[in-house]
Amino acid sequence: MKKTVLAIDIGGTNTSIALVNNNGEIISRSTIRTQDYSLFDDFVNAIYSESKKINTANIELAGIGIGAPNGNFHNGSIEYAPNLPWDGIIIISEVFKSKFNLEVVVHNDANAAAIGEKKFGAAKDFSDFVVITLGTGLGTGIYSNNKLLLGAHGFAGELGHCIVEKNGRKCNCGRLGCLETYASVTGLKKTAFQLLKSGEYDSQLIADKLDEISGLQIEKLASLGDSLALDSFELTAQYLGEALANLSAILDPQAYFLFGGLANANELILKPTKYYFQKNLLQIYDGKTQIIKSQLPNNDAALLGAAAGIFDFLKR
Amino acid sequence: MKKTVLAIDIGGTNTSIALVNNNGEIISRSTIRTQDYSLFDDFVNAIYSESKKINTANIELAGIGIGAPNGNFHNGSIEYAPNLPWDGIIIISEVFKSKFNLEVVVHNDANAAAIGEKKFGAAKDFSDFVVITLGTGLGTGIYSNNKLLLGAHGFAGELGHCIVEKNGRKCNCGRLGCLETYASVTGLKKTAFQLLKSGEYDSQLIADKLDEISGLQIEKLASLGDSLALDSFELTAQYLGEALANLSAILDPQAYFLFGGLANANELILKPTKYYFQKNLLQIYDGKTQIIKSQLPNNDAALLGAAAGIFDFLKR
Repeated sequence: MKKTVLAIDIGGTNTSIALVNNNGEIISRSTIRTQDYSLFDDFVNAIYSESKKINTANIELAGIGIGAPNGNFHNGSIEYAPNLPWDGIIIISEVFKSKFNLEVVVHNDANAAAIGEKKFGAAKDFSDFVVITLGTGLGTGIYSNNKLLLGAHGFAGELGHCIVEKNGRKCNCGRLGCLETYASVTGLKKTAFQLLKSGEYDSQLIADKLDEISGLQIEKLASLGDSLALDSFELTAQYLGEALANLSAILDPQAYFLFGGLANANELILKPTKYYFQKNLLQIYDGKTQIIKSQLPNNDAALLGAAAGIFDFLKR
Repeated sequence: MKKTVLAIDIGGTNTSIALVNNNGEIISRSTIRTQDYSLFDDFVNAIYSESKKINTANIELAGIGIGAPNGNFHNGSIEYAPNLPWDGIIIISEVFKSKFNLEVVVHNDANAAAIGEKKFGAAKDFSDFVVITLGTGLGTGIYSNNKLLLGAHGFAGELGHCIVEKNGRKCNCGRLGCLETYASVTGLKKTAFQLLKSGEYDSQLIADKLDEISGLQIEKLASLGDSLALDSFELTAQYLGEALANLSAILDPQAYFLFGGLANANELILKPTKYYFQKNLLQIYDGKTQIIKSQLPNNDAALLGAAAGIFDFLKR
């Protein structure tokens, strides 16, 4: 089997491409600006040229793995991704296939993260686990019995859109009280801003608008002992821990891997999340499930996940 | 392949056994009283004699399928089942195997119902679905990609123990606010009793204690237009519909099959459940998931599920 694939991480601002080998080593890479290409065909052509440039040794590729927001494995598509320049449903796997004449696999970001964790990260020896991506939103990639759980229509793993608070915070999906409005970097910021406006804290945090707060700022203040920042993490972790306890009652996994901006706060988020998980857990699951920080390198995780997606597909 | 199995449905009061063929036909059957056997070995011996009695044609059996409360497929065990006469963890598959010299498979009731629905019921053509058993409690058996989702430790599918109401109703598991304290026959009764005590209804329902109410009574009153009974179904369905909408965001199934006492109320529970499901559903799942009454015959479902469990295992 050929040992190198082209990995593509499509993001709202930039799209990264890389040659990745079977050991998860990035051989070479490049980046283009996603927003420069209003036509999808131009975008694919630009990736094609870049892929030639970074493949100076002319390595024969085994296939192409793509991670994209709203990527759908079943359809090989991107579907209504709000932050990308192309509207509606695009069957991107077909376009890439005909341009490159290679097998193409598409996954959404969270599923790519889960496949990446399984192939290159800390989940190698786990059959049943969930990767939770905690960034702007909350995404989940689920493994059950050593297989990615895709769902009937490729839309499984939207834990971030479970409603956890009746008439709660407004979510981008149009509904109220979705988990990701609380348990995500955005949720952390909203909680901090809410606590700030309550006037009940003597905090270093100063902001007139939500946009003036960053997750990193809250993390830094929390690490300095700022009680508003610490309570923001605590409340965020409470939502996350309760949600994971409920998720255990559905999936009974061995581990949860936390990934992304919020996970980078390490014990600030891990410790209270474990506490609220344990506090809400049904007894039969006691001591059976770990909550661990993802072991994928932050900057390369999306590319490694995309690469793992095509490796995983080719070995079937 | 041999076409007939021994199906055993272990219940708190009675244990039913039957010879079941590959078409889901019950060839012969018998029942013993579970509580008559304080020693598990005596229980197995009794089942052994009964199985000889009902197998007058001396049909060679392919294996034994067992459905039991707290049955665990991975361990072939019953684990801490509160309503059975045997304490702790019993590896029942080993005991049956050595007595009968046949393959033995153990599932919990809800998983057995799901396998039964897949092999003999309405789920034959579905790859991703969930059977919801609505009786004293709420159990779930999950199929994903044509396979029963067991979880790492065999404890997946405890949707009834997802906490849906903070500081909500006391659950038998010791925690507060579990789904099954609302969405089950017990939940329906509790809701009706609560509405009765509110004094806000002019209802035919009369009860001084919760125990004086039955699910069938509420169903009968609701079908006569009693507003307290109708509201009890509405509130029960609201919890169920919301929980299924959240479950869709995790599993993305094609269908939910409602089974058991509450499901037998037909449209009284199905109609409002569909309404609250749709109302709370993330848009990407619109029109993709049905809510259907189970097509397994109520009285034989547990035996058919147990039989399906061993058929499913033998064909692997």
